[in-house]
Amino acid sequence: MAKTKKTYTWPHRHVLGLEDLTADDLRHVFATARGFEAVSTRSVKKVPALRGQVVVNLFFEPSTRTKSSFFLAASRLSADVLDFTASMSSEKKGETLVDTARNIEAMGVDVIVVRHGRSGAARQLAEHVGCAVVNAGDGQHEHPTQGLLDIYTIGQRLGLDTCDLTGKTVAIVGDIAHSRVARSNIHGLKKLGAHVICVGPPTLLPGGFEAMGCELSTSLDDVLERVDAINMLRVQFERLTSPAFPSAREYTHLFGLTTERLKRMKNNVLVMHPGPINRGLEIESAVADGPNSTILQQVTNGLAIRMAVLFLVHQAQSAEPAASVR
Amino acid sequence: MAKTKKTYTWPHRHVLGLEDLTADDLRHVFATARGFEAVSTRSVKKVPALRGQVVVNLFFEPSTRTKSSFFLAASRLSADVLDFTASMSSEKKGETLVDTARNIEAMGVDVIVVRHGRSGAARQLAEHVGCAVVNAGDGQHEHPTQGLLDIYTIGQRLGLDTCDLTGKTVAIVGDIAHSRVARSNIHGLKKLGAHVICVGPPTLLPGGFEAMGCELSTSLDDVLERVDAINMLRVQFERLTSPAFPSAREYTHLFGLTTERLKRMKNNVLVMHPGPINRGLEIESAVADGPNSTILQQVTNGLAIRMAVLFLVHQAQSAEPAASVR
Amino acid sequence: MAKTKKTYTWPHRHVLGLEDLTADDLRHVFATARGFEAVSTRSVKKVPALRGQVVVNLFFEPSTRTKSSFFLAASRLSADVLDFTASMSSEKKGETLVDTARNIEAMGVDVIVVRHGRSGAARQLAEHVGCAVVNAGDGQHEHPTQGLLDIYTIGQRLGLDTCDLTGKTVAIVGDIAHSRVARSNIHGLKKLGAHVICVGPPTLLPGGFEAMGCELSTSLDDVLERVDAINMLRVQFERLTSPAFPSAREYTHLFGLTTERLKRMKNNVLVMHPGPINRGLEIESAVADGPNSTILQQVTNGLAIRMAVLFLVHQAQSAEPAASVR
Repeated sequence: MAKTKKTYTWPHRHVLGLEDLTADDLRHVFATARGFEAVSTRSVKKVPALRGQVVVNLFFEPSTRTKSSFFLAASRLSADVLDFTASMSSEKKGETLVDTARNIEAMGVDVIVVRHGRSGAARQLAEHVGCAVVNAGDGQHEHPTQGLLDIYTIGQRLGLDTCDLTGKTVAIVGDIAHSRVARSNIHGLKKLGAHVICVGPPTLLPGGFEAMGCELSTSLDDVLERVDAINMLRVQFERLTSPAFPSAREYTHLFGLTTERLKRMKNNVLVMHPGPINRGLEIESAVADGPNSTILQQVTNGLAIRMAVLFLVHQAQSAEPAASVR
Repeated sequence: MAKTKKTYTWPHRHVLGLEDLTADDLRHVFATARGFEAVSTRSVKKVPALRGQVVVNLFFEPSTRTKSSFFLAASRLSADVLDFTASMSSEKKGETLVDTARNIEAMGVDVIVVRHGRSGAARQLAEHVGCAVVNAGDGQHEHPTQGLLDIYTIGQRLGLDTCDLTGKTVAIVGDIAHSRVARSNIHGLKKLGAHVICVGPPTLLPGGFEAMGCELSTSLDDVLERVDAINMLRVQFERLTSPAFPSAREYTHLFGLTTERLKRMKNNVLVMHPGPINRGLEIESAVADGPNSTILQQVTNGLAIRMAVLFLVHQAQSAEPAASVR
Repeated sequence: MAKTKKTYTWPHRHVLGLEDLTADDLRHVFATARGFEAVSTRSVKKVPALRGQVVVNLFFEPSTRTKSSFFLAASRLSADVLDFTASMSSEKKGETLVDTARNIEAMGVDVIVVRHGRSGAARQLAEHVGCAVVNAGDGQHEHPTQGLLDIYTIGQRLGLDTCDLTGKTVAIVGDIAHSRVARSNIHGLKKLGAHVICVGPPTLLPGGFEAMGCELSTSLDDVLERVDAINMLRVQFERLTSPAFPSAREYTHLFGLTTERLKRMKNNVLVMHPGPINRGLEIESAVADGPNSTILQQVTNGLAIRMAVLFLVHQAQSAEPAASVR
């Protein structure tokens, strides 16, 4: 890091996916987040870094946790936060996503945090506006801040200041095919040297992930002993009726993280979950609440990571010559 | 008060119900509120008491007034306020109340203000999180800040700085059985020495309230002359079709506060209502808008009371050794 | 302006419609907005003008742009902004508009920004509360800040510091009869000396507008050559099924602003639209995005105009002796 710091400048005006970031970029986000972590433990949990700046939460899908996390991260940086939810959005009136974003930008906004049901929506936005764009989840594509906070949590729990994950094995378990959380994690983990095993029903485990350098497995039991961290994806209830998806009962039987299974894993294995958890479905309550669980620590780290990302894109944005509207 | 001030320290990290508070506690909230009242009349209506702190409005039932009142109270104390409404909440996704609250807490929140349809929900939360919890209404159990602001208003209008209500009679009129407002008022009023008469249809007037030290009456006309304050509960429209409830017309006839009835009451009787009022149903317009009415004053006092409660629980929280998550 | 400045004092505690404002009032809003424009280009986009004041967005109709614009304008003036949307509002519970507003006022609010589906609702509010009221659109009556920002944009683009529009011709095209945007524009434009042509289908072009000093035309093609600015009203989809309304296809044919039509207009004609636009319906994409378009500039100017209006009504309010509650 010390060497990097001297020559490194964060180059990204947008954070759209971990696919776009280098290992140095990832480490720089983590170092920045580490600096911001302390802010949340002060008696006055604020720094003036983004005072007088406006961050917009532009969410076209319902969300509470991610939106709240960005709200608090932006508030902690002293930014004003505009909530621009889809329920009242102009998309309903036929306005295009780009028109909506251009209008928001014309109001003098600095960072747009966008969640949208369509893969690629965040990039499309970024191509059409002059302000910074942070992807808070686009379709089945990426959810980069979730990937960042997951990997940051692994580094923190394993005591790896450099976040060099060479020799570490991380399993991601569930509906890999449709998960933007999986995709962001895989991109980031691979760049930092980790070995990644994707585990799930064969119908939800497309071959393309092998090309990304992952090992694929349809048997959770086969991989338990080898992993240093296991990331249990949330079962989406709307998928439970899909023919590609096993029944809830069968899912738990094959892929649920139970106390039994935990006993067969490394003693200090990290049990991760992006939340909210389905107790008794993909994860047993005792496991979710046990000492191996990082679930609440992930939530806490989400704030520091999002503060770092908002701070960095805003810095990059301020450094660039003004583009687009005014 | 002067004597109390020297030895008294506010001990409550949570405010879940007036049942839990002593007469000294109540007087301390009122004294604190009195101090904050002035803030709202300044040209800059802010004090830095909670700067850099986060208050969450966690509302699982729709609400505008109470939520807005807490928002403004927290803002006036310079806190950041996160709105975490149920419409977009994870409860829909099957997450439990406690999981939701633990996640919010993991984001570094200082005070959770919770409203929930289930009696006991606020206490359940408080038992599982390390941050402060304020009950903004739980099922048919309690709505403590409403009770506090009602009693504060009585003290203010009667000119009782000490809020000693010995010798004063307060009637609460309506669907006593299902009212958290009634329950909180009764607990507080009794502790400060008032005589409380519960008035309503026999089906909505359970015997348990006698055990709480209340007089019960099924006839409003019988008690009019004796009361110093009358608190008209709001008729819940969803109850109008319940077999236990008289028709709207009959309700007004038996329990509506009309100009006729007001004439038979003490000259300076206080006419109270938690709002929003149903004009012409439980209260006649001329009475609601007349000189005896404290309705808008109650709303104004709600701010000072909520500032006081947020301030006090946060003080108690800061004084305690950190509990729970991080 | 210099002459005006010496003797002029802004007299309005409310801004309910441009019908109520004089030419001097309009110019004073514009001069104030000009001063605030610079704030949005600073690195810290805030002035302390309304610090410790509370602005409420009281919206009974869904809205994103206007509500967001007021939110950001108020934030830029350092006010706290309370969102009091109708979806959770007490109006559903049977409470009247005036009761809701009086309650909000009792919470110590300084400015109420109100949008309501009923013409006259904003004025009704203003008559019953002591705080300042800004109309953000009431039924088919007025939308004064939209009118102000439209006219401000015309003055800015035409390089008219004094906003004297004598000799300028502005066409407003669309469903004139039901448009509060049209009505506010007409009042303001006439007062500043402009010639206004209302263009639309005969069924949507009532004779009353002639009495307001407007020229009426049912043919867009007839007026193209003469206008300095053309304001294309948004087609409301809910009107597309009205018998008074042509089909979408016929509407575009008769009243859509196409590239063809733009070619027949003055070179530097201003193409305006209150947004959100229906691309290909009332305006062709190439025209909306072309060099004559002022659409995004209108959005940007909306912020400065709303900062000015909030600032001015609050100044007027502070100067007056306290009225109403407390």
